Amino acid sequence: MQDVDIQTILDDIRQQTEAFGDRGNVADYIPELAKIDPARFGMSVRLVSGEVFETGDAGAAFSIQSISKLFTLTLALGKLGTGLWARVGREPSGTAFNSIVQLEYEHGIPRNPFINAGAIVVSDVILAGHRPREAIGEILRFVRFLADDPDILIDREVARSETETGFRNYALASYMRSFGNLDHDPALTLGVYFHQCAIAMTCRQLAAAGLYLANDGVSPLTGGRVVAPERARRINALMLMCGHYDGSGDFAFRVGLPAKSGVGGGILAIVPGKASVAVWSPGLDRNGNSQLGTWALEQLARRTGWNVFSG
Amino acid sequence: MQDVDIQTILDDIRQQTEAFGDRGNVADYIPELAKIDPARFGMSVRLVSGEVFETGDAGAAFSIQSISKLFTLTLALGKLGTGLWARVGREPSGTAFNSIVQLEYEHGIPRNPFINAGAIVVSDVILAGHRPREAIGEILRFVRFLADDPDILIDREVARSETETGFRNYALASYMRSFGNLDHDPALTLGVYFHQCAIAMTCRQLAAAGLYLANDGVSPLTGGRVVAPERARRINALMLMCGHYDGSGDFAFRVGLPAKSGVGGGILAIVPGKASVAVWSPGLDRNGNSQLGTWALEQLARRTGWNVFSG
Amino acid sequence: MQDVDIQTILDDIRQQTEAFGDRGNVADYIPELAKIDPARFGMSVRLVSGEVFETGDAGAAFSIQSISKLFTLTLALGKLGTGLWARVGREPSGTAFNSIVQLEYEHGIPRNPFINAGAIVVSDVILAGHRPREAIGEILRFVRFLADDPDILIDREVARSETETGFRNYALASYMRSFGNLDHDPALTLGVYFHQCAIAMTCRQLAAAGLYLANDGVSPLTGGRVVAPERARRINALMLMCGHYDGSGDFAFRVGLPAKSGVGGGILAIVPGKASVAVWSPGLDRNGNSQLGTWALEQLARRTGWNVFSG
Amino acid sequence: MQDVDIQTILDDIRQQTEAFGDRGNVADYIPELAKIDPARFGMSVRLVSGEVFETGDAGAAFSIQSISKLFTLTLALGKLGTGLWARVGREPSGTAFNSIVQLEYEHGIPRNPFINAGAIVVSDVILAGHRPREAIGEILRFVRFLADDPDILIDREVARSETETGFRNYALASYMRSFGNLDHDPALTLGVYFHQCAIAMTCRQLAAAGLYLANDGVSPLTGGRVVAPERARRINALMLMCGHYDGSGDFAFRVGLPAKSGVGGGILAIVPGKASVAVWSPGLDRNGNSQLGTWALEQLARRTGWNVFSG
Repeated sequence: MQDVDIQTILDDIRQQTEAFGDRGNVADYIPELAKIDPARFGMSVRLVSGEVFETGDAGAAFSIQSISKLFTLTLALGKLGTGLWARVGREPSGTAFNSIVQLEYEHGIPRNPFINAGAIVVSDVILAGHRPREAIGEILRFVRFLADDPDILIDREVARSETETGFRNYALASYMRSFGNLDHDPALTLGVYFHQCAIAMTCRQLAAAGLYLANDGVSPLTGGRVVAPERARRINALMLMCGHYDGSGDFAFRVGLPAKSGVGGGILAIVPGKASVAVWSPGLDRNGNSQLGTWALEQLARRTGWNVFSG
Repeated sequence: MQDVDIQTILDDIRQQTEAFGDRGNVADYIPELAKIDPARFGMSVRLVSGEVFETGDAGAAFSIQSISKLFTLTLALGKLGTGLWARVGREPSGTAFNSIVQLEYEHGIPRNPFINAGAIVVSDVILAGHRPREAIGEILRFVRFLADDPDILIDREVARSETETGFRNYALASYMRSFGNLDHDPALTLGVYFHQCAIAMTCRQLAAAGLYLANDGVSPLTGGRVVAPERARRINALMLMCGHYDGSGDFAFRVGLPAKSGVGGGILAIVPGKASVAVWSPGLDRNGNSQLGTWALEQLARRTGWNVFSG
Repeated sequence: MQDVDIQTILDDIRQQTEAFGDRGNVADYIPELAKIDPARFGMSVRLVSGEVFETGDAGAAFSIQSISKLFTLTLALGKLGTGLWARVGREPSGTAFNSIVQLEYEHGIPRNPFINAGAIVVSDVILAGHRPREAIGEILRFVRFLADDPDILIDREVARSETETGFRNYALASYMRSFGNLDHDPALTLGVYFHQCAIAMTCRQLAAAGLYLANDGVSPLTGGRVVAPERARRINALMLMCGHYDGSGDFAFRVGLPAKSGVGGGILAIVPGKASVAVWSPGLDRNGNSQLGTWALEQLARRTGWNVFSG
Repeated sequence: MQDVDIQTILDDIRQQTEAFGDRGNVADYIPELAKIDPARFGMSVRLVSGEVFETGDAGAAFSIQSISKLFTLTLALGKLGTGLWARVGREPSGTAFNSIVQLEYEHGIPRNPFINAGAIVVSDVILAGHRPREAIGEILRFVRFLADDPDILIDREVARSETETGFRNYALASYMRSFGNLDHDPALTLGVYFHQCAIAMTCRQLAAAGLYLANDGVSPLTGGRVVAPERARRINALMLMCGHYDGSGDFAFRVGLPAKSGVGGGILAIVPGKASVAVWSPGLDRNGNSQLGTWALEQLARRTGWNVFSG
């Protein structure tokens, strides 16, 4: 695989996306997200070796939404270690990202840290001993550190929009609180959660931020260790199993890479040992994952041979 | 990684298993299986390069049970191609291996080919145009071909035992039939299904039979192509996502390899590009997966560095 | 309330039904039932005092289907007494008449004897110690005795039709068998169940057969006691709570009488202390209950003041 | 039935309760309720004709909790009429009183007005156009009017206790809000709901307050019409179908009267045309209904012949 090839592949992919009639539907349950132009498309590939390849709107910031769950999980594991798994499971959910049914059957323990309920517990862990403002600041600093970019910001309008309309998340949080699996007032924990989801990043920044997971836990940007090799491997496993909600099986089948999606239309995918890839296309499929983003990663994986399931 | 190392690792693992107090419970819902000695333990590693490493009862035959679903899936994909996915999903189930709840909510379409309902549909595909006896024969010949071993047999006592007591599988089959997702009389399709589950194999044979999945679809034993590279990759993805029922997430987290378990206590794991590994220990955990077998694979993966999630 | 009034009410009701555009849909999952003319309508009121009032097709035989569950429950309680309640619950199901979900959550114990699963258990109780043919004969003789009419028959075509297509009932029976809540081979128990459902009766016969429930357990036709007063009262309670599947609440709200419906379009309603009422209109609502039959009973209850909830 | 008999029956019942070893468990999820002495027992029967019979602690106030749902339903029907049924169903739930599962499957529409979710919607209707304080005042005035007793109060400690710990109700309210089935901020609607549940009444007051439902909608105390006869009948039907959560079928089977229970240990039962009965015993069964209260009503119904299912 030559460098020139990756650039060619990215450009081909971007060009082909222009012909797509059905790009899925932009998330409309968060009013601020509904305003995004569905024609935007960007992609960024950052190799462990340092090279970067981009196409389209790779430099445009978008709301990372649930991709933030990857970063907060990393943070929370740093605070609580394996103790986190007493409060959150590690199994695919078999249900929609915001389902509350499973919580009733499993007594307030979310199935994994990437569905909403699980990520709210993770935020609750980060909030411990802090005020929401401080916890939000810590998350933002961590993301800036991972991306090696001090200019990453939270979109306050998006955060406000979710705070005002996120009743389903209030329900999840209150419900877990009733089982004793939330240590703070739901409004406080959700304050953290809504703000982390409202972080705005570009594909370029996202690919950079995820690179430690492709490099056994060490960021090639700074040379600093973020997590132990085993933890990097396990986070990748969780991403593959649960990173696309109830479409995770289909994503593994088609793309074959650990990845985390967000309803803002972004996906961050990890090629262990090789690269970190971010893609953005706002239109979503019925599971809430970027429709063209998934297709683009499928093309990339096919043409590069990047997938974890072949020799 | 030297060859001598693998043998040492296997011997270490076997030795350590002897100290285990809790080996889980032998499956008792199939009377024939309940008779197995829980102290048995075997493991076989077969490299793509041809080398074989073994320990313990690697040459003892046991009931492969649900590991057969891997071979019948391969067969059915050969017959029906991607058309199979109209009748079976590709998502983790989020429920027990024999749950019927999901079938009601999803109108008779099983979530994946590795839960019982999905495997019954796969058997129904193989049965098309044949009598049960012929379909069973075809499956057995295919498994013998994969393992390059004509001596593999079906344990008639186990098959009879399941036929007489498998009411839950009759329920699943009848239920799917009511939705039109079974083409044959449930008793006929289950005749195939119960016999495939009753195939008896050794760890040695199983590791051989799975090797095509570690070698992009070509069996290193015979040099023959079994499936296209993409299909091998996709079957591996399905194994990782769904191969351990509702414990698949935990297995991916701990072991990080595509694998399929059976209630006979066997597990077949694939190391893409490198090896096929079979392990057998009859005691099961609460999800119905071999308790020591999982632990043994975890040790092997840790000491060899074999997992799909690190660089 | 004068006798002449009831006849007038019945004639008014029948006349008004002629104007109805939407009569619901005739059951089509049983091929034989799908052939019935949806325009048929009959109604019969039999007072405890002996008087009979009729309108329309009150003398036309139709498939009583689930109304038979009332008679088999009475029989099975006679055999097993309150021991029956160890195998069947007494609560409304909150789900469709043929749902299997509840059985998984409640370990094979159906919620009540009027959903399919519950009625299959009841048939299983009646089958004990007999061959299916004998059990079917006993049920038929009991219904003839209740209706004081030796000419009631089983429609063999309907029974055959259900036997060939009733896969969902096979699923329910096999599933309960897997939990040990069925004492016979599912095919045997379902042989009884399908034949009881295929009993053909007229509104006239049905109203007669139900009269013991309006008369504290004694049949006014023969003067013979069928059940103790307390048992009659309790069967009425079960009818009100569970007699219309997941439309039982709506029926109680609108009509306010204990009643049991069947997918053949019949409903048998009890006015404690006063009368037994049978109505037949083949078109069903979305819960599987006769649409016009329910409306007709609502009119009758309103104009006569017959309901159990007012003073 | 002579008046003296009822008094004798009540005294017998009270005396027999003293021998009971297992009185169930006092509700402990509301701290204030957990303090109640489980040995308390009171019962009051008020005939439509005006006579009153009492035993035990009939004059002791307790937290009526969910019995309040009966009064708020009556109020809300007065405001919204049958339009209420677009927001709340009329079917038994088949699940626990505080289950959230059904809300997900049925898109935010609670199954009936007597489970928590349904009662919260009812409170939301009463809140329309008011501040919570005003709505609470209206409910309290209505209950005082029904009981013809200006001394009924809200227990502020209980209300505060629920406000601080009622996370599951916050979850239900937020969840319905996410489906658009709540018009106010969950905290406001729950402010009303928690206060109505905290109304403290004696058996004497409760029996008086319920009497309009036994008298076709007219209060015999004041002679004033509360609701139309049809509405009284329909509320009774709802009580019978849904008044005891997932124990409603059992209650109908054993007692045979429309009734509403509360986790404070009270039950209000209606004998159409004859009487209103209140009983109080704080120990609850597994469905959250008063264990001895149910038993006491069963005895009363048996000895008086008061039940709606016999002639």
